[in-house]
Amino acid sequence: MAIATQPQLTLDEFLKLPETEPASDFINGEIIQKPMPQGQHSLLRSKSCHVINQLTESQKIALAFPELRCTFGGASIVPDVSVFRWDRIPKTSSGRIANRFEIHPDWAIEILSPDQGLKKVLSKLLHCSRNSTELGWLINPEDESVLGIFPGGRVELYEGADKLPILDGIELELTVEQVFGWLSLT
Amino acid sequence: MAIATQPQLTLDEFLKLPETEPASDFINGEIIQKPMPQGQHSLLRSKSCHVINQLTESQKIALAFPELRCTFGGASIVPDVSVFRWDRIPKTSSGRIANRFEIHPDWAIEILSPDQGLKKVLSKLLHCSRNSTELGWLINPEDESVLGIFPGGRVELYEGADKLPILDGIELELTVEQVFGWLSLT
Repeated sequence: MAIATQPQLTLDEFLKLPETEPASDFINGEIIQKPMPQGQHSLLRSKSCHVINQLTESQKIALAFPELRCTFGGASIVPDVSVFRWDRIPKTSSGRIANRFEIHPDWAIEILSPDQGLKKVLSKLLHCSRNSTELGWLINPEDESVLGIFPGGRVELYEGADKLPILDGIELELTVEQVFGWLSLT
Repeated sequence: MAIATQPQLTLDEFLKLPETEPASDFINGEIIQKPMPQGQHSLLRSKSCHVINQLTESQKIALAFPELRCTFGGASIVPDVSVFRWDRIPKTSSGRIANRFEIHPDWAIEILSPDQGLKKVLSKLLHCSRNSTELGWLINPEDESVLGIFPGGRVELYEGADKLPILDGIELELTVEQVFGWLSLT
């Protein structure tokens, strides 16, 4: 529903710009640079990828990518983690992984940074949901909750001992407590 | 999905406690006191009630109540604004409005306060949605957005010139800009 009043650039024009650090999203006609990840954000991102890939990579079920640009549905976004089912990973004619991902992730994970507005992060996950992404996670380290985003833009809140929703076909069981437990380095 | 690990009180026990100021919600077995409303919050709440009631009260369509305790579905919550269709407003045998509302609102509005966690506010609106509330608004003054909550826990983000969803039967047209325009006292 978000409508930019005066889009400055087209998607094609945006894609020709040099990448920034941190990466920038182009959504609803606006360029929005992601916040610089801090400790908790960085650890949650790398742990999520690791936990998913150690279950899915050897069996060629899926792959989780940190900070991968995905261009689809008129936007170009860089979710904190993008998970693709194995057979949807774009490849070159020689069988290598492609550089440009012009498809939606099957599972997108965003981690809310301190002082980051909810709207920008949630609108990315709702863009994914509208474009066939099966599952979204919005991880909020501040209140130790995870908002699950399902097809049709349905949401559900998870906290504490709640079991998190997982992309169909991945045999992973995780509670919210376990996810935030990754942050304790004891 | 929120599960309190060690509920301290039952709903009945909570309801026997004296009211606090600001009011407290009892949800998922936890008592959570609402933040003290500040200027923007207070104005958005009173303006929402006023704008709805001036369209619905004389024609006996609905009534919007600020800070009304609603007890239903195993929780007792005080939305910032609760809108009830006229024929659902509980009455005493003499036709007066009842003091206790033991039903869900038809439309619930929450306004996020600075530093208030999203989880607590959203979990109230999702509790409403699970218990037949037709429409929820989560107004976020910080990023000037409104999250609409629909049956089945479906959400949609509104901003700028987007037309806001309104409870069926109320002839109101409002954009997000208009709502946040209430805050400009020029």
